[in-house]
Amino acid sequence: MTLRDTVRQIVDGTDTFAGRAFDWSLLALILWSIATFTVETIPDLENATVRFLWYSEVVITALFTVEYAVRIWIAERTWRYVFSFNGLIDLVAVAPFYITLMMGLGAMDLRAARAFRLFRVLQLLKIRRYDRAVARFRRAWVIAREEMVLYLLLTVIMLFLSATGIYYFENAAQPEVFKSIPHSLWWALATLTTVGYGDVYPITVGGRIFTFFVLMVGLGIVAGPAGLIASALAQARREEADRG
Amino acid sequence: MTLRDTVRQIVDGTDTFAGRAFDWSLLALILWSIATFTVETIPDLENATVRFLWYSEVVITALFTVEYAVRIWIAERTWRYVFSFNGLIDLVAVAPFYITLMMGLGAMDLRAARAFRLFRVLQLLKIRRYDRAVARFRRAWVIAREEMVLYLLLTVIMLFLSATGIYYFENAAQPEVFKSIPHSLWWALATLTTVGYGDVYPITVGGRIFTFFVLMVGLGIVAGPAGLIASALAQARREEADRG
Amino acid sequence: MTLRDTVRQIVDGTDTFAGRAFDWSLLALILWSIATFTVETIPDLENATVRFLWYSEVVITALFTVEYAVRIWIAERTWRYVFSFNGLIDLVAVAPFYITLMMGLGAMDLRAARAFRLFRVLQLLKIRRYDRAVARFRRAWVIAREEMVLYLLLTVIMLFLSATGIYYFENAAQPEVFKSIPHSLWWALATLTTVGYGDVYPITVGGRIFTFFVLMVGLGIVAGPAGLIASALAQARREEADRG
Amino acid sequence: MTLRDTVRQIVDGTDTFAGRAFDWSLLALILWSIATFTVETIPDLENATVRFLWYSEVVITALFTVEYAVRIWIAERTWRYVFSFNGLIDLVAVAPFYITLMMGLGAMDLRAARAFRLFRVLQLLKIRRYDRAVARFRRAWVIAREEMVLYLLLTVIMLFLSATGIYYFENAAQPEVFKSIPHSLWWALATLTTVGYGDVYPITVGGRIFTFFVLMVGLGIVAGPAGLIASALAQARREEADRG
Repeated sequence: MTLRDTVRQIVDGTDTFAGRAFDWSLLALILWSIATFTVETIPDLENATVRFLWYSEVVITALFTVEYAVRIWIAERTWRYVFSFNGLIDLVAVAPFYITLMMGLGAMDLRAARAFRLFRVLQLLKIRRYDRAVARFRRAWVIAREEMVLYLLLTVIMLFLSATGIYYFENAAQPEVFKSIPHSLWWALATLTTVGYGDVYPITVGGRIFTFFVLMVGLGIVAGPAGLIASALAQARREEADRG
Repeated sequence: MTLRDTVRQIVDGTDTFAGRAFDWSLLALILWSIATFTVETIPDLENATVRFLWYSEVVITALFTVEYAVRIWIAERTWRYVFSFNGLIDLVAVAPFYITLMMGLGAMDLRAARAFRLFRVLQLLKIRRYDRAVARFRRAWVIAREEMVLYLLLTVIMLFLSATGIYYFENAAQPEVFKSIPHSLWWALATLTTVGYGDVYPITVGGRIFTFFVLMVGLGIVAGPAGLIASALAQARREEADRG
Repeated sequence: MTLRDTVRQIVDGTDTFAGRAFDWSLLALILWSIATFTVETIPDLENATVRFLWYSEVVITALFTVEYAVRIWIAERTWRYVFSFNGLIDLVAVAPFYITLMMGLGAMDLRAARAFRLFRVLQLLKIRRYDRAVARFRRAWVIAREEMVLYLLLTVIMLFLSATGIYYFENAAQPEVFKSIPHSLWWALATLTTVGYGDVYPITVGGRIFTFFVLMVGLGIVAGPAGLIASALAQARREEADRG
Repeated sequence: MTLRDTVRQIVDGTDTFAGRAFDWSLLALILWSIATFTVETIPDLENATVRFLWYSEVVITALFTVEYAVRIWIAERTWRYVFSFNGLIDLVAVAPFYITLMMGLGAMDLRAARAFRLFRVLQLLKIRRYDRAVARFRRAWVIAREEMVLYLLLTVIMLFLSATGIYYFENAAQPEVFKSIPHSLWWALATLTTVGYGDVYPITVGGRIFTFFVLMVGLGIVAGPAGLIASALAQARREEADRG
């Protein structure tokens, strides 16, 4: 077995101890990268913290760069990897850092590149051990796609009907809160998803009875996709069992 | 192939590029129509905006009118289309505009017709590409109708029992909030659907323990239909696969 | 066909027009009865309204009494009906009214009997047309009972663990809000059921991170029974189809 | 049948009346133990109450100790029981009390041991009559584990993307509320789980439209596991029926 095969086994496989260790290390690195990214946005950080975050970012980028290089090296068909979903994620994880440096921007001024670092969170999907589950989610999406889109359409229709209705019921009683239909849409969204922040709610008897009907019809529509995707996943699992 | 067949293929089909383009254009037009409808309700709009919305409405109505005429022309059985769900929606989308004009109402005074324009949101269901999914939803409704109605009955029963219970627990402590059972129904609705605006909530120990029991029993009832319709959709899909 | 058979067909059946009309009238009567019951609790009602509600109650009770008598008359096995679930509901719907009168209480003083009138809401379950759906719910309950009870146990465990945890995190920062574990249980209930009134919520970083873990584990547990009963209903429907 | 067999039948079985009575007594004892545990945290309890709770704790511990001793006695393989999940729970339920006493701490000063008493809530899972349901839950977990973990990953990704997005939309308008991405994560958690306390919510148009998209995508992800575990439970039940 050549060196390249051994490395491939570690990076792509989960059968060996080294493979699993690589997976866990990568997971830790990604989580650490996300954590530092979010912490950076806290206002009035001390200078020492900012400097630490900068060194941490340099090390993280270096490690991700090595990982990217290794993955190109071990790829059976280089370009296919480079333009695959995983390959692009790996590139986006490191490229902004170098671009910022090359453009002569100050070392500390990573603001512009920061937004791109967010996409590192997508690297969580790269972890090998969930390949089969990811495939099952894709299959479930294919199975339930048409219904999902229809549910989305129904949700949009429901949101508009609810917003228009509540506007006519509540506008007179709360002209500042239910100012217009676009304003009422915010209520419709918070209510139909059952988030219910409590910043807007009907106070008239008519508006509350209307809310009852909206919720009776709307709950089934807005909460539907979760159950649908779950049952599609179950079907995808059955298909897999039938095949294998 | 006659001109009528070609037009039919574009309007009703999704196989050709023109057919898909028509679908997307129609979708854009409907969404634009809904957007302008909601924007009109914003108070204190500038004159220029109001004028723009008026011209936009004229154009939208013209386009929907042409669409309606074309659909009548290509319909294999004219009257069947006119009185079908889609036909009525198409009529309702344009008729109010002309009625308002004919009745000699001022050009800008479309308030009366506005409420009807809302129904254009239902045109979203007309988009051809979801015909199969719509049929599946209808089938799912037939499968689960009896249970859905029973769930609704149970929800109504649950709402009344909860409202009555909380009224007896909280009325003494919060006479202004839990003023009567009809007032308490508003709490029951917000709680059982888990919206929880936060405008009314129990503060006594008894009322909170009662809320625990209400939620334990009620969640399964109120959240049930979403899961039920999802499983009925799965069954409808299986039946389709068995047939096809 | 004897008169008794004809009446039975109307009261118990849904095949004839008269049978369906009876069902709908009964539904209307029950809903009217519930509506007046709740309205009575509104404070400071006008005298005229109170008198109207009293006469309405006399009429409703009379009609329910006639219905009860008819049902006893047409029952094939009288005592079996009297002690059945439906029979007891029918008795509870009228008995308190007569007891109050007999005990010489003032005609208007129905407070004592009022609580029992609430149970008329259960009469909604008596409507014949849902007999099959009710049977399916019973079957679904038998299928999923053990898991439902276990879900309930897990919910109770989850509530206690969450309340204890948040108490240790938040007690120092909000001693008045998270005063003790029983007080924290109220937060746990509102959070795990996703009601989220907003009267209590964590403000410390530790408490918020704890809330994340609580919700990740807890949502699946608290929201589980709804999906479970839905899938048990689907199974009950399949069994029915296999039999019939 | 030896005495040991009889005791075993009572403690482990649910076939006899004594067995069921034991189960119910144990359940009552556990619930009582939890109740006193939570009540103890109420501040400013009267001396009489504190003393009562202390005696109650002594009796509870004594009973749990007897139960532990009996379970060791009747265990077919002593050490296997001692190190089993149930055995460890039983030990943790009593050990802290004795350790506190031996260490010479004041009789009333059980604070240190209190945290461990919380784990008695787990004894609820020990009740024999749910053994089959517990086994089914374990099986359901094995069936759906990969998807559950992927759902968790997607939830984490979704939380971070939402928090970052809302931070950019709302930070300018509400710098004190959406102070940084870690602060915005709290909003993302309360929103995606639909808890919606109402302490933080977007007020800009951009932030509200963003919330719409976040909820449309996020609801299916966060609410998914509940449906998934329910369908996995149904599958576990089918497998059981096929076997038995």
